[in-house]
Amino acid sequence: MAAFALGWSDADGRPHQGDGGKGVRPAIAMLSAEAVGGTAESALPAAVAVELVHAFSLAHDDIIDHDERRRHREALWKAYGVGPALLTGDALLALAVNQLAGRPEAMTYLSRALIELVNGQTADMAFENRPWRGPNAVTIAEYTEMVAGKTGGLLAAAAAAGVALGGAPELGDLMWETGRDLGVAFQIVDDMLGIWGEPRVTGKPVYSDLRRDKKTFPVLAALAADHPAARELSDLLAEGVSDEDSVHHAARLVEEAGGRAAAQGLAERYVAAAVAVMDEHLPDAADLRALCVSLADRAR
Amino acid sequence: MAAFALGWSDADGRPHQGDGGKGVRPAIAMLSAEAVGGTAESALPAAVAVELVHAFSLAHDDIIDHDERRRHREALWKAYGVGPALLTGDALLALAVNQLAGRPEAMTYLSRALIELVNGQTADMAFENRPWRGPNAVTIAEYTEMVAGKTGGLLAAAAAAGVALGGAPELGDLMWETGRDLGVAFQIVDDMLGIWGEPRVTGKPVYSDLRRDKKTFPVLAALAADHPAARELSDLLAEGVSDEDSVHHAARLVEEAGGRAAAQGLAERYVAAAVAVMDEHLPDAADLRALCVSLADRAR
Repeated sequence: MAAFALGWSDADGRPHQGDGGKGVRPAIAMLSAEAVGGTAESALPAAVAVELVHAFSLAHDDIIDHDERRRHREALWKAYGVGPALLTGDALLALAVNQLAGRPEAMTYLSRALIELVNGQTADMAFENRPWRGPNAVTIAEYTEMVAGKTGGLLAAAAAAGVALGGAPELGDLMWETGRDLGVAFQIVDDMLGIWGEPRVTGKPVYSDLRRDKKTFPVLAALAADHPAARELSDLLAEGVSDEDSVHHAARLVEEAGGRAAAQGLAERYVAAAVAVMDEHLPDAADLRALCVSLADRAR
Repeated sequence: MAAFALGWSDADGRPHQGDGGKGVRPAIAMLSAEAVGGTAESALPAAVAVELVHAFSLAHDDIIDHDERRRHREALWKAYGVGPALLTGDALLALAVNQLAGRPEAMTYLSRALIELVNGQTADMAFENRPWRGPNAVTIAEYTEMVAGKTGGLLAAAAAAGVALGGAPELGDLMWETGRDLGVAFQIVDDMLGIWGEPRVTGKPVYSDLRRDKKTFPVLAALAADHPAARELSDLLAEGVSDEDSVHHAARLVEEAGGRAAAQGLAERYVAAAVAVMDEHLPDAADLRALCVSLADRAR
């Protein structure tokens, strides 16, 4: 089941050249090590750990969110049942912890990321039950805090553990903060792909965030705009978007009110801030920088 | 939700003097530290960590096993739903890892326990779908291996991390093995309580293991006996025990065939072996020894 989750086998256990994801987190770990003069190999335990934690979180998130599709295939729980998928997630996490148990300079960051991940996921769940408007509406500041944990924590751990294992533990805390910024950018772009992405490419059903009232950045930004489309969108979301027509219409209004442009702009600013820190403090950040810039370009 | 899981609050979040469990694992950690001349406080991070991991595993196991009751109350998932309970389990695990992230001498044991725990739980699940007799029947050796992981891993981590933090890391591996033996004894007694325990005391519905074909030691031992009741039990289990009468009858046959006595005897031998190691290698094992002996007496 773990091999299925990682894209290495099909549901019957046969070897399978599946979509194992982009490998962004391990790439950040290894490029961060290289950026401080270490070898990519020096960060390998951290690279493996963050990818395993990512796989763990997908396995559990899909159960929590009732998402039936992941990476062009059935979600793990859909293929094997909730109990086995839950336990497989636990196994992936145990293996991740095992990678770094003897390396406190990296383990402390992984541990911090786990707590951030759970806090972020908890907030994400709670936000689904809060309204789009009115005094209890989710604010953009709350959104940013949520995604800095949910998505940023693990990117932060990858970057911080990467430099720590690469020979520059004194840069760990700085890279932690930088990784969180990258995570915010990364999630904003993911939010965009959830609305305007090609399901063929993303492997996820389109509009599922909108359908379930997920508080994503493009929608929050659109609602905050001073634009007629923002008011129409607000009314539409208050009614609830469930049928194909209304969800499609909502997506158009988000774009019309400027939500898409605001998202792209903010993601790029977060990446630029992260890249500036890297350029200033890391001896050789060229490859890491290129990766980070590419992350903001995925929804263009 | 974590407070509910730990017995500190009711389902509405009000403070509650609930049943938080026996605290065996933290007691082993702290008494192990004292047994090598350390303070109980020196093992506190390990004590907290093993109790949190235990709470994590209960939260997830109850989802996997569809157990609706835990410690005289609703199970966590029953009170809050599967998704929130799953995430609460993850949070408890993240907090556990956080306790020891900077202490590799203890973290390595906790990490090993997590892997054993998942392996043991996986085997336990798989055994439910295997027959009681015939070539594919679960053997007593397989059972012992399974519980050494499922229950022994965390007791082993408590004992090993306890002596490591108490100032005797060189005794860690020895205490790991000893803790696994204790775990086997502990689980055999738990199996007995699942059949002959008072639901008022155990907080669990009686006979649930029997009903769901859990491969517990008393039943395996009874089936292995050369006794007419063993053959009757074998036929009864092959038919499946679901109604109140047949499950009650099965319990009687297990006792008649000697399964209860065999379980008590084996648990005591495992405890005796563990205690002998402690007496030989630990400077001051008196309190730890007393705790261990009491563990085997719970089902008398």
